[in-house]
Amino acid sequence: MEGSSLSDGGGGPSSDRDKNQLEVVFYPDCSHRRKSSLVTADNPKLRQSLEQVDRTTACFVHSLIAGEWIAPSTAQNENPQGKDRVLEMERLVGDANITTGDEMVSVVDFGDKIQKPSPTVIQSRHLTKRQLSDMAWNVRKLSKKLGSIRLRLSVENVFLVTKPHDESLVSLTRKVTQWLLSKDRHTPYNVYVEKRLQTHPDFAAVQLLEEEPTAQGRLHYWDTKLAQDHPHLFDFVVTLGGDGTVLYTSWLFQRIVPPVLSFSLGSLGFLTKFDFNGYQDTLTSAFREGVVVSLRLRFECTVMRTKPRPDDESRPGAPKRDLVEELIGEEQGDTLTHTPDKLFQILNDVVLDRGPNPTMSQIELFGDDEHFTTVLADGICIATPTGSTAYNLAAGGSLSHPENPVILVTAICAHTLSFRPIILPDTIVLRMGVPYDARTTSWASFDGRERVELHPGDYVTVSASRYPFANVLPFGSRGEDWVQSISKTLNWNSRQKQKAFK
Amino acid sequence: MEGSSLSDGGGGPSSDRDKNQLEVVFYPDCSHRRKSSLVTADNPKLRQSLEQVDRTTACFVHSLIAGEWIAPSTAQNENPQGKDRVLEMERLVGDANITTGDEMVSVVDFGDKIQKPSPTVIQSRHLTKRQLSDMAWNVRKLSKKLGSIRLRLSVENVFLVTKPHDESLVSLTRKVTQWLLSKDRHTPYNVYVEKRLQTHPDFAAVQLLEEEPTAQGRLHYWDTKLAQDHPHLFDFVVTLGGDGTVLYTSWLFQRIVPPVLSFSLGSLGFLTKFDFNGYQDTLTSAFREGVVVSLRLRFECTVMRTKPRPDDESRPGAPKRDLVEELIGEEQGDTLTHTPDKLFQILNDVVLDRGPNPTMSQIELFGDDEHFTTVLADGICIATPTGSTAYNLAAGGSLSHPENPVILVTAICAHTLSFRPIILPDTIVLRMGVPYDARTTSWASFDGRERVELHPGDYVTVSASRYPFANVLPFGSRGEDWVQSISKTLNWNSRQKQKAFK
Amino acid sequence: MEGSSLSDGGGGPSSDRDKNQLEVVFYPDCSHRRKSSLVTADNPKLRQSLEQVDRTTACFVHSLIAGEWIAPSTAQNENPQGKDRVLEMERLVGDANITTGDEMVSVVDFGDKIQKPSPTVIQSRHLTKRQLSDMAWNVRKLSKKLGSIRLRLSVENVFLVTKPHDESLVSLTRKVTQWLLSKDRHTPYNVYVEKRLQTHPDFAAVQLLEEEPTAQGRLHYWDTKLAQDHPHLFDFVVTLGGDGTVLYTSWLFQRIVPPVLSFSLGSLGFLTKFDFNGYQDTLTSAFREGVVVSLRLRFECTVMRTKPRPDDESRPGAPKRDLVEELIGEEQGDTLTHTPDKLFQILNDVVLDRGPNPTMSQIELFGDDEHFTTVLADGICIATPTGSTAYNLAAGGSLSHPENPVILVTAICAHTLSFRPIILPDTIVLRMGVPYDARTTSWASFDGRERVELHPGDYVTVSASRYPFANVLPFGSRGEDWVQSISKTLNWNSRQKQKAFK
Amino acid sequence: MEGSSLSDGGGGPSSDRDKNQLEVVFYPDCSHRRKSSLVTADNPKLRQSLEQVDRTTACFVHSLIAGEWIAPSTAQNENPQGKDRVLEMERLVGDANITTGDEMVSVVDFGDKIQKPSPTVIQSRHLTKRQLSDMAWNVRKLSKKLGSIRLRLSVENVFLVTKPHDESLVSLTRKVTQWLLSKDRHTPYNVYVEKRLQTHPDFAAVQLLEEEPTAQGRLHYWDTKLAQDHPHLFDFVVTLGGDGTVLYTSWLFQRIVPPVLSFSLGSLGFLTKFDFNGYQDTLTSAFREGVVVSLRLRFECTVMRTKPRPDDESRPGAPKRDLVEELIGEEQGDTLTHTPDKLFQILNDVVLDRGPNPTMSQIELFGDDEHFTTVLADGICIATPTGSTAYNLAAGGSLSHPENPVILVTAICAHTLSFRPIILPDTIVLRMGVPYDARTTSWASFDGRERVELHPGDYVTVSASRYPFANVLPFGSRGEDWVQSISKTLNWNSRQKQKAFK
Repeated sequence: MEGSSLSDGGGGPSSDRDKNQLEVVFYPDCSHRRKSSLVTADNPKLRQSLEQVDRTTACFVHSLIAGEWIAPSTAQNENPQGKDRVLEMERLVGDANITTGDEMVSVVDFGDKIQKPSPTVIQSRHLTKRQLSDMAWNVRKLSKKLGSIRLRLSVENVFLVTKPHDESLVSLTRKVTQWLLSKDRHTPYNVYVEKRLQTHPDFAAVQLLEEEPTAQGRLHYWDTKLAQDHPHLFDFVVTLGGDGTVLYTSWLFQRIVPPVLSFSLGSLGFLTKFDFNGYQDTLTSAFREGVVVSLRLRFECTVMRTKPRPDDESRPGAPKRDLVEELIGEEQGDTLTHTPDKLFQILNDVVLDRGPNPTMSQIELFGDDEHFTTVLADGICIATPTGSTAYNLAAGGSLSHPENPVILVTAICAHTLSFRPIILPDTIVLRMGVPYDARTTSWASFDGRERVELHPGDYVTVSASRYPFANVLPFGSRGEDWVQSISKTLNWNSRQKQKAFK
Repeated sequence: MEGSSLSDGGGGPSSDRDKNQLEVVFYPDCSHRRKSSLVTADNPKLRQSLEQVDRTTACFVHSLIAGEWIAPSTAQNENPQGKDRVLEMERLVGDANITTGDEMVSVVDFGDKIQKPSPTVIQSRHLTKRQLSDMAWNVRKLSKKLGSIRLRLSVENVFLVTKPHDESLVSLTRKVTQWLLSKDRHTPYNVYVEKRLQTHPDFAAVQLLEEEPTAQGRLHYWDTKLAQDHPHLFDFVVTLGGDGTVLYTSWLFQRIVPPVLSFSLGSLGFLTKFDFNGYQDTLTSAFREGVVVSLRLRFECTVMRTKPRPDDESRPGAPKRDLVEELIGEEQGDTLTHTPDKLFQILNDVVLDRGPNPTMSQIELFGDDEHFTTVLADGICIATPTGSTAYNLAAGGSLSHPENPVILVTAICAHTLSFRPIILPDTIVLRMGVPYDARTTSWASFDGRERVELHPGDYVTVSASRYPFANVLPFGSRGEDWVQSISKTLNWNSRQKQKAFK
Repeated sequence: MEGSSLSDGGGGPSSDRDKNQLEVVFYPDCSHRRKSSLVTADNPKLRQSLEQVDRTTACFVHSLIAGEWIAPSTAQNENPQGKDRVLEMERLVGDANITTGDEMVSVVDFGDKIQKPSPTVIQSRHLTKRQLSDMAWNVRKLSKKLGSIRLRLSVENVFLVTKPHDESLVSLTRKVTQWLLSKDRHTPYNVYVEKRLQTHPDFAAVQLLEEEPTAQGRLHYWDTKLAQDHPHLFDFVVTLGGDGTVLYTSWLFQRIVPPVLSFSLGSLGFLTKFDFNGYQDTLTSAFREGVVVSLRLRFECTVMRTKPRPDDESRPGAPKRDLVEELIGEEQGDTLTHTPDKLFQILNDVVLDRGPNPTMSQIELFGDDEHFTTVLADGICIATPTGSTAYNLAAGGSLSHPENPVILVTAICAHTLSFRPIILPDTIVLRMGVPYDARTTSWASFDGRERVELHPGDYVTVSASRYPFANVLPFGSRGEDWVQSISKTLNWNSRQKQKAFK
Repeated sequence: MEGSSLSDGGGGPSSDRDKNQLEVVFYPDCSHRRKSSLVTADNPKLRQSLEQVDRTTACFVHSLIAGEWIAPSTAQNENPQGKDRVLEMERLVGDANITTGDEMVSVVDFGDKIQKPSPTVIQSRHLTKRQLSDMAWNVRKLSKKLGSIRLRLSVENVFLVTKPHDESLVSLTRKVTQWLLSKDRHTPYNVYVEKRLQTHPDFAAVQLLEEEPTAQGRLHYWDTKLAQDHPHLFDFVVTLGGDGTVLYTSWLFQRIVPPVLSFSLGSLGFLTKFDFNGYQDTLTSAFREGVVVSLRLRFECTVMRTKPRPDDESRPGAPKRDLVEELIGEEQGDTLTHTPDKLFQILNDVVLDRGPNPTMSQIELFGDDEHFTTVLADGICIATPTGSTAYNLAAGGSLSHPENPVILVTAICAHTLSFRPIILPDTIVLRMGVPYDARTTSWASFDGRERVELHPGDYVTVSASRYPFANVLPFGSRGEDWVQSISKTLNWNSRQKQKAFK
């Protein structure tokens, strides 16, 4: 037994095996391959990238600490035994803990970041079960570490997000922009606001620059393309709005997410933990004294489209296509059955539903290489812990603390008495598909934003993302505050107080 | 041990603080102390133990690998930089992975084990939040490691458990016993069976020894005291029965749990993964080729009793006692309000309910040092992931995969429309208490077995246990099998199949 | 038309059969008899009563209108075609509707009422399915009628109920008592208060009579026996407290219930519809202008105890007793298997649960002469529509408008995924029993008050009661107010209002 | 206003009032009118019809017995005091009960029926609260009566329905058709089959008439128009298929429904109570010995469209329209705000949902003239008792016995923790509307078949229908069978049977 079932993901020899395989293997002893993933085999760039998979997260905070910041140090040299970067990073984070008093200086600068070649993206679904599990594990580990340290960042480029289409927020955005641009610092801030404000009368950009002449050249405008292509440009994101604005920010940053500090304009929400009224003090303190970051698990979702079969197989008399067989059946040749289409990182949930169809959906649910069940329902909701208070709540799911490394699976109006929500580890790859003999299409919706039609044979993969969402918390805030949040925001376990008789 | 991984993240001097303080501190910056825990202050032995807390699990498998087996090595010497044992242990487990081919020999022997001074038990509730979190983390880590390795144990002492009070199982137990005793090996097995069998006619002990003369001196009898006081004696536990028998085994081994291989006598259950009909092959293979072990999270529960106040405080006019104030209020002097009573390690759930009282219970629920909510209900069920398919199911909770490191909190018949089950991380310490002004007592029940009355002012603490339950799985078994289990055992998402018309 | 409306629909001779049979027959064509009900056969008085069953309700309001008041009229004479009294009563009620302007004078007087021989009580479980169905139907019909008329009663004897054991209400009770006794009327009020007040210092009865000398002889004291034995004595009941006090009033009046007007001392409840602050105006108007009465469905519950079998049948080798067989099996001889024990009229619910037993209950549920299902659960809750907002809510049942003529059946923590609450017509007789082979007893609790242990073989019958509860409503109050009640009292469909940003 | 609140619906003087009012008045003392219903005022035909409203049901069975059959008798003459027809009908039905042995002959014949002028349809929403309540009450009463009598019908015209679009059923339909046409009787059957069969090769109509020459002129074809316009033509409906086919039959007969006997081609369902394998015996017995009919409550639903306001009111500065104000606010002038659009009789449910919209719906729910609540959810399901096992089940509603006279209101994925399904009496008029300021439209779907888009301001009324659905039951079948149905069809309260150990 050459280490197959004994090998752990961290060790040296196993990396050789990793290099030679591209198919997704759930278990070393397992002969199943997800045939639809063979698409990767003919992509040399991806092949190369997979060889370098280090199973780290791809979190911004990670890269700040482990990547740029640590790079100059001789971390690698001190680690000649081939330990992987993740462990190093941890040790350094560990050291950081006890070197309090020193400034934790980030040397990340603008020029560096944009020159970096953008790396080939490794998607979760390409990982082996082991790699995925290790990656998810490292997100958990980083998340745990971050829960107890204060990150001091060298902030230069600030990205401002507000509720789109809400005109009333334009003047507030202007206020914050002006305040940031006016700060007299060694390295003054660059501020990025949404492109539509450039010409918005309430924002009055020209006048703003007149009022703050030094701001010339430091007021920039972003569009979604800039956010998606150059997330490394930004050191810090500030949002004005509610939880929906934070969700929008997650959608803007589909890979690396800079730390996001969210101001609420009403009552505090699950992700908006700062009151806008104190924005000056909050930002001053965040930039000067550092922030506590909570990493929120995101899911990576890929829409997989069924490929038409070659002519000779679709002739009359050919066996009917069977989604279960194609996804977890024995492999026969290198025939690709599916090709990847869109890819999403979600913070709340992916929902498959019947859309405008009057009849219920039939959805095949797979976990790793098992066929879990056939769901006859209006739909199915796969939620992150963060999303447990969103649609998952409406569908009857339990409320999950955001730190739990779990996937919440809840049917929407199941047409059976015995569907109970289930909670799975974030190390499982879920796949949900529309069977070939389904009468209707289904619709997939990602964080309630993108809506994609799934035709018979199509499916969606869901797995823990390498790009968690970095949410800035107030100092002294704790996980237990979450119960206060659900009590206040959702009236959890609330009761009518009896009016006392006078 | 320079405190590196012991340090909380808040600052440098914390390592000194840890040494000098015994109270439970949740957060470095937090001035709250659980006053009722001050009980530990005058116990020098405990004080010393706490100073040496290494936050490892106290799992049998852990101790096998990390403790006895590794001890003779120079692990500590190779680690002069002060790394703590947990990391070492992991690396060794890692190494073990790739030294396949060698026997993984356990040198644990009978004599050694009983001579070892029994260590002072550190209970979860004495740990700081940081220590508890690290400990829970290490259970998770060990659990992950074990999920992918095959443990080869040197089995000598086998502990047999069957359903208590089920007479029909006596002859099956005799069969297994005889088969084990008859195996011709270098080191023949010692078999421990329940004491009541010694004189049971169906077991016919005398005759058994006549049939198997070499077994003389190798057939032993256990009672609950032996199991509880000397768990290290046993290398392997075999159970015959159902999930209830496994639960009973968990109750027998209140600290260290040897690996438990469970045979089902009917349909397979959540914890009974082996069909009794193949017991000979199963055991032969397990002892020869090793086993895969799944660590099941257990909770440690302590019943805390309210202490009467000194006379001068209970005089008329003295302020009324308030449980919320006593548990999370500001500390005033060293007054102990509570003393610990019974301690339980549970595998399924701890339930507080109204017992025989006709009216609903009022229960105060605390998480770490927050008062979560007041539950007006028939009771509350705090379940492990393993217990999610037991009482938690009946109370309306979600079904949780056993690998999730979570605590499931579900009200039993809450007298409100807005109680939804919540899922918390296993790093939180829960406390549930009966308020001082409650009209009735409540009852706590541990794994449905022990039932303890709680008077006003009493409470129960619940936290992740250092003693997980080591459940042996079949080779090639995977976490995803769990969905098949709930489908078959609970009819999850089952539907009436339409009878086709002929 | 003798017996016309008594006849079941199946055939002519049935009227003869009705006269000669005492067993309960659900359907004319049905050979099943509830053997345990044969108990009635040797009771000549009951036999006679059953022959005279008129399937009317036994509501106080009914008897006021149809009985005493109508009796002197020649209603029967005007109805030579043999119409039964129920129809007459209705016509009269109908006539009453249009004779507005006239006083609707009740001639009921004290002397009459206590001299009346108390009638043999016909219990619901003795009725045939047809009789029961007709009786339930007549309650519905009366209830509908009452919903739209204003009853003007000649009130003389007022019965005051307050929350038992609540000392703070004594002085309020005194206030109301004094006010009632001081009213200068042609026929001054007699007021009945609870016996314990007679000597209560805060009530100060002696002083009260000194302050109100004319009240001499008009202040009386009641105990539970008086309420239960002579309900006809009282023309009107006034309660001070909350819904619990109304429930207590229902318990006091186990048969006929006088109209009950309930003052709330806090926020209004489901049954307490009048604010105490306006008690003088409310009572003045009620007595002068009449009241609108809502009849609340009550259930009649009988505890049935298993009878030991004659010696020769309990000998070894005799077949084991089977509850299902005994309740719905074929009849064999006249062997009585059960005898009736206690009898309760309930307004909220009857709950069977496991009481202090640590394990779940096994309950056999029967509807008429069908075995519905075996419930494995913590218990089962059978609620009236009024009780739908009480324990039924906690058990997960739907909320039912109080006018629905239904029985709500909800399991308490069913140990299965597929138990969904069911709603049955109030014309079904439910029986819930503990099977003979149950390991433990169960406990039945009636309106959360009386708690009775059920041993294996015992069962409880539940059927619509002939004694509905007459709850006085404010003028202009409507059924739709119920949704406002659940919104305000239970926070039904409430949401956190977003705090707007200023 | 003499007698206003005392008047019952049956009495003489009240009819004068009825004649003079056309608006819908919920309560006599109530000044609210549903302004949108004023549409009726200018329709003289409707005005006349309303004057003749007798609040009877419009059930086929009713009309058979009460209308045609009774008409020749001097029922009206015997009732000079002005009793309404409903009471008469009952007495006659009552007589019918005891005249067993006689043939209950229906003299309904083809010619009569088609010459009858089709009456002006009175829709439920035009009725006063009192009229509606009386009408619902009479459906209940008729339903009760029918539960215990056997209707012997003179069947001549048989209407055959099969699952539309299911080709496999064509030959079975041919079988039944041929068998019916071949019966040698005094009055041979006319058989109506679906129009598409006329030319269907498997049905082979020409050949069928060759095989059965006497059938010439007795084989007819129906289309939906015939069923909807001339329901009186048909004496009996036979369906082949499943519950869906019965639902389709309900949709075909939007007013009067002849008795429907439904054969199941698979396992029996909730509405298909006869096994197709025995169709010859079943039909022979039904036509010769009569049938037991269960009346299933249907709801009448009207889509109400908002009317644009006159120009001068929609000018800038005019107050915004408010649905709550328009539906239950004080009336101001005769301005009509809404006009009726489509009308549906439903057997299962009306569902409002978000259709293809990605965001949740906001729905205003009214009961009579109260604004119940604002539902934020995916939608809302209003189900009949029959529909409680359909979509209502999926949405989490309770299961209701079909005889309960109730309306089941269940939110679909409510975005709140505190929405619990509610059960209302069938005497309430529900209205569900899309508020004027809603961001999106909603969709209403009737029995899952018709799907109608609702724009802001539109609403749907739901009330008990005067046209219940007459479902034929097997002899000896009882309401209690329903629990067996949910157990078998839905696996209600089913448990995994433990495999015993051999």
